[in-house]
Amino acid sequence: MSTFRSASTKRAQVKRAHERGHYDRSTINQILDACPLCHVAYVLDGAPIVTPTLQWREGDRVYWHGSSASRMLRTAADQEVCLAVTMLDGLVLARSAFDHSANYRSVMLFGRTEIIVDPDEKAAHLQVFVESLFPGRWNALRPMTDQELKATTLLSLTIDEASAKIRSGPPQDNEADYQLPIWAGVIPLEMRPLTAVPDPRNREDVLQPEHVSLFQWDGHQLSSA
Amino acid sequence: MSTFRSASTKRAQVKRAHERGHYDRSTINQILDACPLCHVAYVLDGAPIVTPTLQWREGDRVYWHGSSASRMLRTAADQEVCLAVTMLDGLVLARSAFDHSANYRSVMLFGRTEIIVDPDEKAAHLQVFVESLFPGRWNALRPMTDQELKATTLLSLTIDEASAKIRSGPPQDNEADYQLPIWAGVIPLEMRPLTAVPDPRNREDVLQPEHVSLFQWDGHQLSSA
Repeated sequence: MSTFRSASTKRAQVKRAHERGHYDRSTINQILDACPLCHVAYVLDGAPIVTPTLQWREGDRVYWHGSSASRMLRTAADQEVCLAVTMLDGLVLARSAFDHSANYRSVMLFGRTEIIVDPDEKAAHLQVFVESLFPGRWNALRPMTDQELKATTLLSLTIDEASAKIRSGPPQDNEADYQLPIWAGVIPLEMRPLTAVPDPRNREDVLQPEHVSLFQWDGHQLSSA
Repeated sequence: MSTFRSASTKRAQVKRAHERGHYDRSTINQILDACPLCHVAYVLDGAPIVTPTLQWREGDRVYWHGSSASRMLRTAADQEVCLAVTMLDGLVLARSAFDHSANYRSVMLFGRTEIIVDPDEKAAHLQVFVESLFPGRWNALRPMTDQELKATTLLSLTIDEASAKIRSGPPQDNEADYQLPIWAGVIPLEMRPLTAVPDPRNREDVLQPEHVSLFQWDGHQLSSA
C-alpha cells in the first residue's frame, strides 16, 4: 500500500488561502464520494484539455470510464492528468465587492492514469460504480456483453498527490466594514434529486425500485465514506 | 468583431456522440450564463492543472478573476487554456449497465487568455459580474480601493473555439432490451438556492435586499441570455 503523501509534492499544495487547505484522506474521500461529476485535464499536442465525466472511488483509487473511442480516454491513458471534483455550496455576499466569495468543497488529484484492460476486472469496477449510486441495481440489469466491455475504456488514478480545499461560513469583511449598513450573508446552494421520470417505454408491470425512490444525492454517499 | 468559428477547429469539435454537439452561439451562451462555476485547465511545466473558479460572460467573451497571487491566474495569463462549464442535469438509468448515462449541458472553450490590467476596466468588468448575480448590489457596496483592484487579476477568453454538448431525455436501450422487466428512467438533478443565511454580524437595521430574497439560480440568468 502506498504511503499517503498528499501534501508532499509542491503542485498538490494549496497555494492561496492556505488555511482552506486539507490533506487528510478522510476529508478528501468525503468530497470525492459526495460528487461523481469531475473534470479531468490532460495535455494533447502541448495544449490543455479538460473534460467532464463521472468518477467513483474504491479505496485509495478513483475510476472513470467511457467509450473506447473517446478522445479523452484514449489521450489520457497512461498519461499525467489532473482531476478536480468541485461542489459549489454557496455564494458569499460581503460588504465590499472584494470580499465576496464562494463556499465550496473541492479536491484536486494529480498523477499518471492506469488503464484497466482485463474484462473481468473492468466489469467488477463498473459494478461498484453502479452499486455506489443505485444499491441492488447491478444484478437486476441485463448482463454486460463481451462486446460492451470491449467498447468501454476504464481509467484509474491513485489518490496520492492530492489536496482538498474548503470554504464555509459567513463573509470575512475588513473590520471597519462591519459598521456599514449593508446586508451580508450567504446564499446556500444545494444539488438535489427531483422526482424520478420513468421511461415512457417501461413495461407496465415494472415497479420503481427502492434505489430510485430512496435515491439521495450527496448524503447517502457521505454517510458511507 | 471576430467571426464566430466555433466548430471550425478540430479540437473544438465534439468527437463522441456527435449528435449531442452544438455550435450555435445562443446555445453556448445559455449554458455559460446558467452556471458561473467553471473549470480552467492550463499547462504548468508540461503537466496539466485544472482549477475551479467562477466565470461570467460579457458579449463574446468570458471573464474570471481572483487574487493576483493565485498560481492559476499567474500561470494562465496569456496562455492557452481550456475552460469547461458543466451542469449535471440527471442520472439516466437504462436496462443494461452499458446504456446508463447522464443528462448534462456542457461547454468547452479553447484559446489564449488575455489579462486586463487597466484598473477602470477591471472595476467595470467586476461590476458586471456582481450585477449579473445580484442586480442592484454594486452601488450599495463599500467602493473598491485601488489596492483591492491591484490585488485582483482579471483574465478573459474570447468565445471563439467553442462547442456545447447536451444530453437530455430518457435512456436509449438496445431495442431488444425494452422487453425486459427492468425499471428505466431518469433521476433529474437540480441546483437550487436555499434560504439565505444572514451574517450574524449584520447591523440590526439592515434589511435583506431583493437580490437576495428573489435570488434565482440558473433561471434568472437563462432568461437574460
